[in-house]
Amino acid sequence: MSLKDLELIRQRHISLRSQRSIWMMRVQDEILSSMRDFLRADGFIEMLAPIVGPVTDPGSGGLRQASINYYGLELKLMSSIIFHKQMVIPLTPKVFALSPNVRLEPLESIRTRRHLVEFKQMDVEQANASYEDVMKLMERMLQYVIKRVKSNRKKELQALNRELKVPSVPFKRYTYEEAIEILRSMGFKVRHEEIPWEAEEALSIAHEEPFWITNYPIRARAFYYLEHEDRPGFLKDFDLMYPEGYGEAASGGEREHRYEIAVERMRRMGEDPLRYGWYLEMLKVGIPPSAGFGIGIERLTRYVCGIRDIWEATPFPKVAGLISP
Amino acid sequence: MSLKDLELIRQRHISLRSQRSIWMMRVQDEILSSMRDFLRADGFIEMLAPIVGPVTDPGSGGLRQASINYYGLELKLMSSIIFHKQMVIPLTPKVFALSPNVRLEPLESIRTRRHLVEFKQMDVEQANASYEDVMKLMERMLQYVIKRVKSNRKKELQALNRELKVPSVPFKRYTYEEAIEILRSMGFKVRHEEIPWEAEEALSIAHEEPFWITNYPIRARAFYYLEHEDRPGFLKDFDLMYPEGYGEAASGGEREHRYEIAVERMRRMGEDPLRYGWYLEMLKVGIPPSAGFGIGIERLTRYVCGIRDIWEATPFPKVAGLISP
Repeated sequence: MSLKDLELIRQRHISLRSQRSIWMMRVQDEILSSMRDFLRADGFIEMLAPIVGPVTDPGSGGLRQASINYYGLELKLMSSIIFHKQMVIPLTPKVFALSPNVRLEPLESIRTRRHLVEFKQMDVEQANASYEDVMKLMERMLQYVIKRVKSNRKKELQALNRELKVPSVPFKRYTYEEAIEILRSMGFKVRHEEIPWEAEEALSIAHEEPFWITNYPIRARAFYYLEHEDRPGFLKDFDLMYPEGYGEAASGGEREHRYEIAVERMRRMGEDPLRYGWYLEMLKVGIPPSAGFGIGIERLTRYVCGIRDIWEATPFPKVAGLISP
Repeated sequence: MSLKDLELIRQRHISLRSQRSIWMMRVQDEILSSMRDFLRADGFIEMLAPIVGPVTDPGSGGLRQASINYYGLELKLMSSIIFHKQMVIPLTPKVFALSPNVRLEPLESIRTRRHLVEFKQMDVEQANASYEDVMKLMERMLQYVIKRVKSNRKKELQALNRELKVPSVPFKRYTYEEAIEILRSMGFKVRHEEIPWEAEEALSIAHEEPFWITNYPIRARAFYYLEHEDRPGFLKDFDLMYPEGYGEAASGGEREHRYEIAVERMRRMGEDPLRYGWYLEMLKVGIPPSAGFGIGIERLTRYVCGIRDIWEATPFPKVAGLISP
């Protein structure tokens, strides 16, 4: 990101006043509306997402959470609402929420052009579903959203000079191992862990339609994804990737819901089970198995609008280290 | 609130599993969906609400904001998004957002049964509208929402034993001065400032339909409401009140948008203009006049469902001083 960009973000209360912003906001409105229409028509109900709490997603690889002083104690801002979705599916087996998330990303995340410190996800969870079920759901949802935007926001896409194809389903699927092979053949040095930003972007550039990377190795992810019973050491999970260099779109998978195994997984990941109070108590009482995902609204807006820098895909961007409205 | 209630909130990850919660959540889903449908049909577009920022609504009367350490500096959690709505209306004259709000209410707020520390509002703003315009908008919106809930969530309302009338419009209106007169005749000692919780509840109990209190005195409210040109010392603002003891529903009004007068108002309220960086810079550049409101989703759910305690009107309640999921 250039210094000029940083200044535009800092001055967002002025720089927002552009035709591009209006087009972006009108597309974003249609994305939100069409996504909810799709989910409700499929039997999902919307819940209010939590904002703060004593327990949230630890993520993987040194994610820094933000916290507030709550009457002398510490509450965290949600980094994702996975555990809360699991709390609700015993009551209502199909649930979604527009969730507010804050993650204090490292300063170097600015150069990826796709990291924001605060962002919104459409968070979806379904009881007794497999990870392949919710992958199919997301494919149909994205098709529906892009069709609606193309039809109801035609002028805005034209003004943004964005030619967007409705993706064909099913999206191409790579296992994590296959993706690593491809990346190695492209000259990337990748080890058995989270795929680095640059490698992910290269893979994305090589595609013209959204695609999946499935079955990440267990140590590349947080403790709450379910291990694949037929492929020990690998998970029943996925990332959705946008094409054309837009990179990661969404993450999801089946959840580990068995108390003993969750505690064991935490220990192996260096997480202290004592810090997961209500979440582990809930697993002890028992919850149904489920699968779900969170899809970032700003990243989807960026892809749909053909915007290169994520900060332009939200009215109030926050990027690492910079104070802005 | 009883000790038993506090325990149920603390154990929400278990106590949520009740038929009442399912009914509440299904009603809440319909409230959210019908409200957005109404607003979009009226030409409003949805924006993503901010979560944290350097400037937020100071409220009136010692509201305590929560804040995070943001790369060594302080950002506040939004206590309301009024200033951000004003940022957007130069681009899109009708805007709404489901906004996440955190206010560290005093511990005694627990006994009002209608205060949560974190809550969601449907935040609405319209450029060049009068406060009476947006009052009419809210009346039509509430009518529409209650009609849709009664029609699409009939079974749930029956199960909750809730008989709910579609309110007739226009709602009854009292000026603040008229409301104070009535309260004095009821034996309340009220001075010229924010109406106390108990008095507000008594007034609410005396009504069977929602009603308005308009034109609060200037020192009862924060600096950003517009002073009435024909009634100096009073504002072009309103509170919406639910009947049957449910109390305050929403606040709103016309916004002070003139830089010099806003600074002058801040000074009179004891606010330091230097702490309002981007907001005052924005007023200096100039924004259109506007009016708007925020209506609390949990309080509306509480009223529609006929639930006495606000914490039952959200899956993840936070009340003052208590740690819960």
